[in-house]
Amino acid sequence: MQLKIALLGGDGIGPEVLAQSVKCLKAIEETFNHRFELVEAPFGAIAISGSGKPLPNKTLELCKASDAILLGAIGSLEYDNNPEAKVRPEQGLLRIRKELGLFASIRPIKMFPAFLGNSPLKRNIVENTDMVIFRELTGGIYFGQKTLSEDGTTASDLCTYSEGEISRITHLAFKSAKKRRKKLTLVDKANVLETSRLWRKTVTEISKSYPDVEFECLFIDNAAVQMMLNPRQFDVVLTDNMFGDILSDQGSVILGSVGLLPSASAGIDNAMFEPFHGSYPQAKGKNIANPVASILSTAMLLQHFNLNEEANAIVAAVHKSFVKKVVTADVLGSSKYGTDYVGDFISENIVESD
Amino acid sequence: MQLKIALLGGDGIGPEVLAQSVKCLKAIEETFNHRFELVEAPFGAIAISGSGKPLPNKTLELCKASDAILLGAIGSLEYDNNPEAKVRPEQGLLRIRKELGLFASIRPIKMFPAFLGNSPLKRNIVENTDMVIFRELTGGIYFGQKTLSEDGTTASDLCTYSEGEISRITHLAFKSAKKRRKKLTLVDKANVLETSRLWRKTVTEISKSYPDVEFECLFIDNAAVQMMLNPRQFDVVLTDNMFGDILSDQGSVILGSVGLLPSASAGIDNAMFEPFHGSYPQAKGKNIANPVASILSTAMLLQHFNLNEEANAIVAAVHKSFVKKVVTADVLGSSKYGTDYVGDFISENIVESD
Ligand SMILES: [Mg+2]
Ligand SMILES: [Mg+2]
Repeated sequence: MQLKIALLGGDGIGPEVLAQSVKCLKAIEETFNHRFELVEAPFGAIAISGSGKPLPNKTLELCKASDAILLGAIGSLEYDNNPEAKVRPEQGLLRIRKELGLFASIRPIKMFPAFLGNSPLKRNIVENTDMVIFRELTGGIYFGQKTLSEDGTTASDLCTYSEGEISRITHLAFKSAKKRRKKLTLVDKANVLETSRLWRKTVTEISKSYPDVEFECLFIDNAAVQMMLNPRQFDVVLTDNMFGDILSDQGSVILGSVGLLPSASAGIDNAMFEPFHGSYPQAKGKNIANPVASILSTAMLLQHFNLNEEANAIVAAVHKSFVKKVVTADVLGSSKYGTDYVGDFISENIVESD
Repeated sequence: MQLKIALLGGDGIGPEVLAQSVKCLKAIEETFNHRFELVEAPFGAIAISGSGKPLPNKTLELCKASDAILLGAIGSLEYDNNPEAKVRPEQGLLRIRKELGLFASIRPIKMFPAFLGNSPLKRNIVENTDMVIFRELTGGIYFGQKTLSEDGTTASDLCTYSEGEISRITHLAFKSAKKRRKKLTLVDKANVLETSRLWRKTVTEISKSYPDVEFECLFIDNAAVQMMLNPRQFDVVLTDNMFGDILSDQGSVILGSVGLLPSASAGIDNAMFEPFHGSYPQAKGKNIANPVASILSTAMLLQHFNLNEEANAIVAAVHKSFVKKVVTADVLGSSKYGTDYVGDFISENIVESD
């Protein structure tokens, strides 16, 4: 297969962890005989210092012309410490999502047996957890109309959803469920919210086209509880922007290390893959950042193009690094291995399975 | 002290658990020389069958004329299984809150060492957890304007808050923090929501009148995570209606048994105390319901009137029941004790401390 992949290193540890993903992509190219055209472009704080824009036009053009995007991370202390700044790295992220129609955030939450002990939950509860959260990313109350009365004493936020916004992510989620354990849980608050009732009606209707997928609904307060009591019950979780914000953070933390978690933002025509973690500017250039989240995001990218064997080869190499304890110190305090070394180990252990 | 207390047994296990609270109130009366006038009145499904209304006028009058209200539980299978029913038990709850101006839900989350093992969280994380959640109960998106477009394809929910709604609960929360460990955490989503920014501005302003209370802010997604990673960090948590719905359910579950958790709804002039658990109709009349949540709600009632020694006497008797394993089967599977027996044990062990 031939793929053109845009590489946006971004800020902080972004470029370092992305470099390890590139090693893996090269190993996949060689081992499985693919052609990946990898093109780097500036994005985030680093792009602001160059062109004044967090998402320069050239970068956007490249992204549009690519089959997929691999992102490192975005955000810098310089801007975090300056709330007055008019141009901010994060605006680049909002704009790229909008321009490319990336309406679904996809977050796999899969327990790695090697790190069971890192979870705040008891071992028997969190063991074998394996879910994917589909969070609507461009609608809902985060993007609704905001008002503040002239005297500053009354404020409002409007949450709106349309059937179209709901159905496009719902189809993505059901398609994913079909390939997994065939269960989809819609999380809403349909006992009080009108938008939730529209979600429930729309998703229930669509569920009929996926008769082999078990479909259930859960209220958000109960879902937040179930995430702690029995996360194994979840396969695909589908929810709106705000509920997804809460649930996916909660889901991440039950795994015990945010340095291991990949994620994707997807639309109909485009997809971007990035570690769940942020730009961690304090660690920049120190060769201590965990490259696994970025590497697993690369596996998600391959899976997106149905290169499942290739994706599995990456995951297997990551597992091997866990077993051999070739990991960074954030997941194993006593470890002396750096970002580079872990990236080398994983990429060198990518092999065709028999 | 003389107190008039309205007793609303309500539905399901409500009357049974409330009966155990009455035993405790009588023991307190005797031991500490108080006069409690206890008056029962119908409320909930049982009131609908009598008068057609979940909150009959006479019950409301009684509540208004009383110093405080003790509620058992509300909700019945008959109505849960009939979504078409126009009159519902839960409407009584909404109406009583409105009529009595009960704008704050108060939920203490205190770990009982005896049941540490019941928590889904690891022992070292949840040990010594002791917080109170103040959830705004009558505003926000749950009560805002709802719309559904004529063709049924677009829906909206409006979240509004006024300075007045925020400041009245904020003062209650700060006053509570002053009597506790002197820390207050506001949970919001001020990086995206206008209402959250009004909360943050208003609460920050009010915090200056409580200089001895440490004040901090947390985004809801992070708060949901911190509740699992380090619940001990929280003393008083203050938040809006929807975020409070999620956080207080999450907080409850980390304790490992919902049968132990008291709660209150308070306003300026009125207060109602009730177990956090529901009416559990499946257990009705079986003498298996856990009366501790109701009994601890009674302790909260006494505390509300600054009868702290009296409240502590109840809590001490409850602790004794834990130590002696005189508990119901929901918290200790092997236990053979029923609701009545546990209620007798606790009320008989209420003594003046030396
Ligand atoms: Mg978040
Ligand atoms: Mg709730």
